Amino acid sequence: MLDTLFNPKGVAVIGASGKELHIGNRVIKNLLDFGYQGGIYPINPKADEIRGIKAYKSILDVPGQVDVAHMVIPAKFVPMAVEDCGKKGVKHIIINSGGFSETGPEGAEIERVFLEKAKAYGIRIFGPNCQGIINSDPAVRAYCNFTFTFPDAGHISIVALSGGVAEVIHQGFSAMDVGTRIYASNGNACDISIPEIIQYLADDDGTRVIVTYVEGLKDPMGFFEAARQATKQKPVLAMKAGRTMEGAKAAASHTGGLAREDLATDLIFKKAGIVDFRDEGHLINAAVAFGSQPVPRGNRVGIITNTGGPAVIATDILVDAGLTLPPLSGKTKAMLTEKLYPEASISNPVDVLATGTAEHYLVCLEAMMADDSFDCILVHFVTPFFVDTEKIATAIAQVNQQQIKPMVCNLMTDRRQWAGTEAILKEGGVPCFALPSDAARALGALVRYRNILDRPPGRVRTFGDVDTAGARTVFVKANGRSMLAADQVYEILEAYGIDVPEWRMADDIDGAIAAAEAIGYPVVVKADAASVVHKSDMGGVAVNLADADAVKNAARKMKEQIDAADLRFFVQQFVPGGREVILGAKAEPGVGHLVMFGLGGIFVEVLKDVVFNLTPVTDAEAREMVDGIRTSALLDGVRGEKPVDKTALVDLIQRLSKLVTDFPQIRELDLNPVMAFEKGAVAVDARIAL
Amino acid sequence: MLDTLFNPKGVAVIGASGKELHIGNRVIKNLLDFGYQGGIYPINPKADEIRGIKAYKSILDVPGQVDVAHMVIPAKFVPMAVEDCGKKGVKHIIINSGGFSETGPEGAEIERVFLEKAKAYGIRIFGPNCQGIINSDPAVRAYCNFTFTFPDAGHISIVALSGGVAEVIHQGFSAMDVGTRIYASNGNACDISIPEIIQYLADDDGTRVIVTYVEGLKDPMGFFEAARQATKQKPVLAMKAGRTMEGAKAAASHTGGLAREDLATDLIFKKAGIVDFRDEGHLINAAVAFGSQPVPRGNRVGIITNTGGPAVIATDILVDAGLTLPPLSGKTKAMLTEKLYPEASISNPVDVLATGTAEHYLVCLEAMMADDSFDCILVHFVTPFFVDTEKIATAIAQVNQQQIKPMVCNLMTDRRQWAGTEAILKEGGVPCFALPSDAARALGALVRYRNILDRPPGRVRTFGDVDTAGARTVFVKANGRSMLAADQVYEILEAYGIDVPEWRMADDIDGAIAAAEAIGYPVVVKADAASVVHKSDMGGVAVNLADADAVKNAARKMKEQIDAADLRFFVQQFVPGGREVILGAKAEPGVGHLVMFGLGGIFVEVLKDVVFNLTPVTDAEAREMVDGIRTSALLDGVRGEKPVDKTALVDLIQRLSKLVTDFPQIRELDLNPVMAFEKGAVAVDARIAL
Repeated sequence: MLDTLFNPKGVAVIGASGKELHIGNRVIKNLLDFGYQGGIYPINPKADEIRGIKAYKSILDVPGQVDVAHMVIPAKFVPMAVEDCGKKGVKHIIINSGGFSETGPEGAEIERVFLEKAKAYGIRIFGPNCQGIINSDPAVRAYCNFTFTFPDAGHISIVALSGGVAEVIHQGFSAMDVGTRIYASNGNACDISIPEIIQYLADDDGTRVIVTYVEGLKDPMGFFEAARQATKQKPVLAMKAGRTMEGAKAAASHTGGLAREDLATDLIFKKAGIVDFRDEGHLINAAVAFGSQPVPRGNRVGIITNTGGPAVIATDILVDAGLTLPPLSGKTKAMLTEKLYPEASISNPVDVLATGTAEHYLVCLEAMMADDSFDCILVHFVTPFFVDTEKIATAIAQVNQQQIKPMVCNLMTDRRQWAGTEAILKEGGVPCFALPSDAARALGALVRYRNILDRPPGRVRTFGDVDTAGARTVFVKANGRSMLAADQVYEILEAYGIDVPEWRMADDIDGAIAAAEAIGYPVVVKADAASVVHKSDMGGVAVNLADADAVKNAARKMKEQIDAADLRFFVQQFVPGGREVILGAKAEPGVGHLVMFGLGGIFVEVLKDVVFNLTPVTDAEAREMVDGIRTSALLDGVRGEKPVDKTALVDLIQRLSKLVTDFPQIRELDLNPVMAFEKGAVAVDARIAL
Repeated sequence: MLDTLFNPKGVAVIGASGKELHIGNRVIKNLLDFGYQGGIYPINPKADEIRGIKAYKSILDVPGQVDVAHMVIPAKFVPMAVEDCGKKGVKHIIINSGGFSETGPEGAEIERVFLEKAKAYGIRIFGPNCQGIINSDPAVRAYCNFTFTFPDAGHISIVALSGGVAEVIHQGFSAMDVGTRIYASNGNACDISIPEIIQYLADDDGTRVIVTYVEGLKDPMGFFEAARQATKQKPVLAMKAGRTMEGAKAAASHTGGLAREDLATDLIFKKAGIVDFRDEGHLINAAVAFGSQPVPRGNRVGIITNTGGPAVIATDILVDAGLTLPPLSGKTKAMLTEKLYPEASISNPVDVLATGTAEHYLVCLEAMMADDSFDCILVHFVTPFFVDTEKIATAIAQVNQQQIKPMVCNLMTDRRQWAGTEAILKEGGVPCFALPSDAARALGALVRYRNILDRPPGRVRTFGDVDTAGARTVFVKANGRSMLAADQVYEILEAYGIDVPEWRMADDIDGAIAAAEAIGYPVVVKADAASVVHKSDMGGVAVNLADADAVKNAARKMKEQIDAADLRFFVQQFVPGGREVILGAKAEPGVGHLVMFGLGGIFVEVLKDVVFNLTPVTDAEAREMVDGIRTSALLDGVRGEKPVDKTALVDLIQRLSKLVTDFPQIRELDLNPVMAFEKGAVAVDARIAL
């Protein structure tokens, strides 16, 4: 579908201009300078030629096929121009001009109108208010864009709404002499969307790695589905900015959206198998490694260096990233002891010394490539004047081209003096980084991707014992309430197989006593009324009541304190002991629900030690949540305590996920606390808001 | 003292060579290429000239003054050559050659011999096994070094043992077209030390910022004292590598040292007022900002941009670094509303739009410089082809040169196409970073330095109520024991005014009962014997004993379980309740003691939520420790609990610091737990190891 957008046979520029500093001139210049292989058609009612190319009064006058038309004209003329494009049979329009939905309702109306016309003609719109696309495929060389970074042909594709950041990333590759494949920045994205482009890039054989930047997702589920499919085919690297409230505000101010805390995007990245980044520099460096290197089989790294300190720095970063530095195998050690200088350090890192030769690098690299102890290689290479640096570079490039194991290089040099050495490495496809930390982190990202690939696939469980119909009846009964009554909440939990203490609902004090007698002491009594939201704060909870008198007193006191005609008493078995945990779910519009798990009490209050996931939570994800809190050791039992039943918690998370997935009207659901025991876990307090 | 090293009138090269690839040739080439202003004297018994310069058979033949002599000769010839230098009146010798203490005992002996000779002649040695020094002062231009980075004159000085990393840092500045002042990498550092060089740089008016890299400290206290003095004069930026065990191993392997966990260096950095870094890229970027910018008065940042996304990225980083983005003042807002495009975003960040002109940047920068809401400015600047980028650069540089508030620039451009624009900014002293995150972090480092400057100075308290002489008597009594007896421990604590529960030492079961009666029930009984180290594990602790029978049974049981002739019973008042905290001290050879504070129980076991400091701990540092644990909210009281007496804990930390400072023979001291109450804190168990 987007094939003609990225591989256009002919490009028209509506609003082509003779003025150097006009976008309608620049796009033509860029197409020419980049060596575009198709026809270029400037459209201008007054000019005969622009930049030496015949111009046409109207797109209807163009003789050849026009797959893509740029529009660089005031917003109000766009609908008419779309009409003309329709008549001409144009397939895609890139609207560089602004003045549409980003400016307010008036512009939004123009956007609506031209989009309607485009749909009628089957035209797809890219933008408006956007940069455009670039395709560096030598057979195409389409620079349908007014920016200024001219990429070599490469394997990394970039897609982002934000032109500013997409360009920063693009410049990052360019500054490192790394080529790119496709570049797409679609601004308002009124029609062709980021998910669609990701889908296209996933299928594009020339793209080895997809890089994207977001400040929030317009269509979270669409993005998720496209990314999940794409990550099955190739790595997708992404960064989300606007993580902080202030950052979110800054993002809202330039996109015209609303500032809000956004937890869902990170979770979507994770669930979709995206390799995510918090620093655009790390993203750029990682993409360079992904663009040329195979995926490591594991996390074991071998390091070669000709200078000590940088390898120390890299080691710290690698270890932080979860990599290990195994010792050399006996065979490797023996070979290197024979071939390297006697003063060389024959361990991991191997230090061939500053005087180490190309032969030393070669024997060391080949030994490490053949050594089963290592999954990937980090090469440090400083260029002293007293060795043949070009020969060393040739050795490194030669080993790299065998693509046996991924390799990155920390090349420490003066690019002005050692341009030839650098060129040999880069032409040999070796990812080169000036700083040891950057090289190490790029390698770390490759290993992170391996870990993502190796994640257990996970399964959304189906439950034979879940009574969805029963729960539905309760929701129907609750229609109109924003907060379910306690009996409704517990009926629903029971319908979903979530363990709760035995309970009864009582209309009055005598009823409460009768309920307590039936359940057996000790009991808990809770006030229940539509107006009672924070029952603890209102004196609406009494625990550990040992006899009828205690129940009577507690219920009486509640009646005095809480002035509600519909006041009832929820009586439940008192379940002491156990480890307090909390579970929750919160609707995330357009996504489903966020599901939360953590330890209760001070751990959530002081340490905020909770983890989240998105519905539907798979079995693997639920297990990861339970193991993922910082204080998970407390679940395993410390100081002689018994471990709690993690399997029950994993089960509970999945049941909760199933419940909120089946009933999307649930706005918030809290199980707080759940008492986790050596065997089983019981939700002793719960709340459902619609 | 080091003045002639860094400003030599004449430089001789002993071991000067005619061979291009020899260090003895390269040093001469570097001196020539860099434009050294003094005399160059190649020393070679066989050559008449080297690189066109008259060579001498012996240094004694040199007619002029030689302040610095390089030695590029085999190790075994060095002592004799030092002798000659002494006769000639050479002041400093830079020994580039290796083969000394780094290779083993034989080399170490040569090092000892030449050092002795040098001392006899009053010669200072730089190295051996080192790169050397560079001084880019236009009046000097001394490149006494065999590396290949030729710096412009600048304000940043670099000092490090590790030549590899010093060179990476140097290259980092060079790649950004940022000059340096003095460069010094002294390898084995057998004589002239890093602390001495730091002291010199602190006094050097041309040095605005000192940058260093360490993998561990040879002379921790010397470093600390030098750094503490230096940070009073100018910022000192430092990075320590070998943070991880694997990194420490890599460091040990290339320095010949022992791999060990090193907590002290970080604490020394902190105590000395060093701005520390964990990433050499961040260090390089920060140094660039420190080299040209004033120190901000506070943490409030104003952002100007002509593209949205990069400002969002920067905002996240700035907020993470503790900066705030206040709104524009009414006056600024009004002025910008009048002067900028109507579509511009007049908030913080200000978005002047991609079409924003030099006038827009200028009015905005000047308004923010004048606006009391801001302490520092971040400028984002992408270079679109349709604006006069050189004029914008001129405006930014102009405002920067007024040095009103610190400013950094995120310049997003293609350096090949916009070289002129970049040059204007750089010549104007504007620190330019290609990535928004890098710019934001550099600004964050300036603010971090402000926070260091604003730290309360802190005072090491003197205690009127401390009985050092009394404690000394106990230590004398304990002579020969590696672990003090319980009564000795508590006597010492009491002598230092540390609250402990009332206690008695008893020799037998009857004595224990008598002791309990005297103290009053409930009591705790603990087994005490030289062989009993982990008394809890051996059944040697019984708590909450309510009467004589309970004491008798407990003591009997201990007697059965613990087979020790010297078994005695330590009886103390049982102090229930309170919040468990732990304090500790551990000797750190060459430094003093590490003092530790944290919450006890699961918080230390599971969360490792402890903080450290170095003796002597000041009042401000003790307060910072108590407030600095992640769970400090628990000390303030959560869930209706009473807060604990933080002042008592602050006092306790200082008394502990005083105790271990007065008695450096204390190897380890634990107060675990200390019970902290609403009023006061009591050490209920304690251990002192010598």
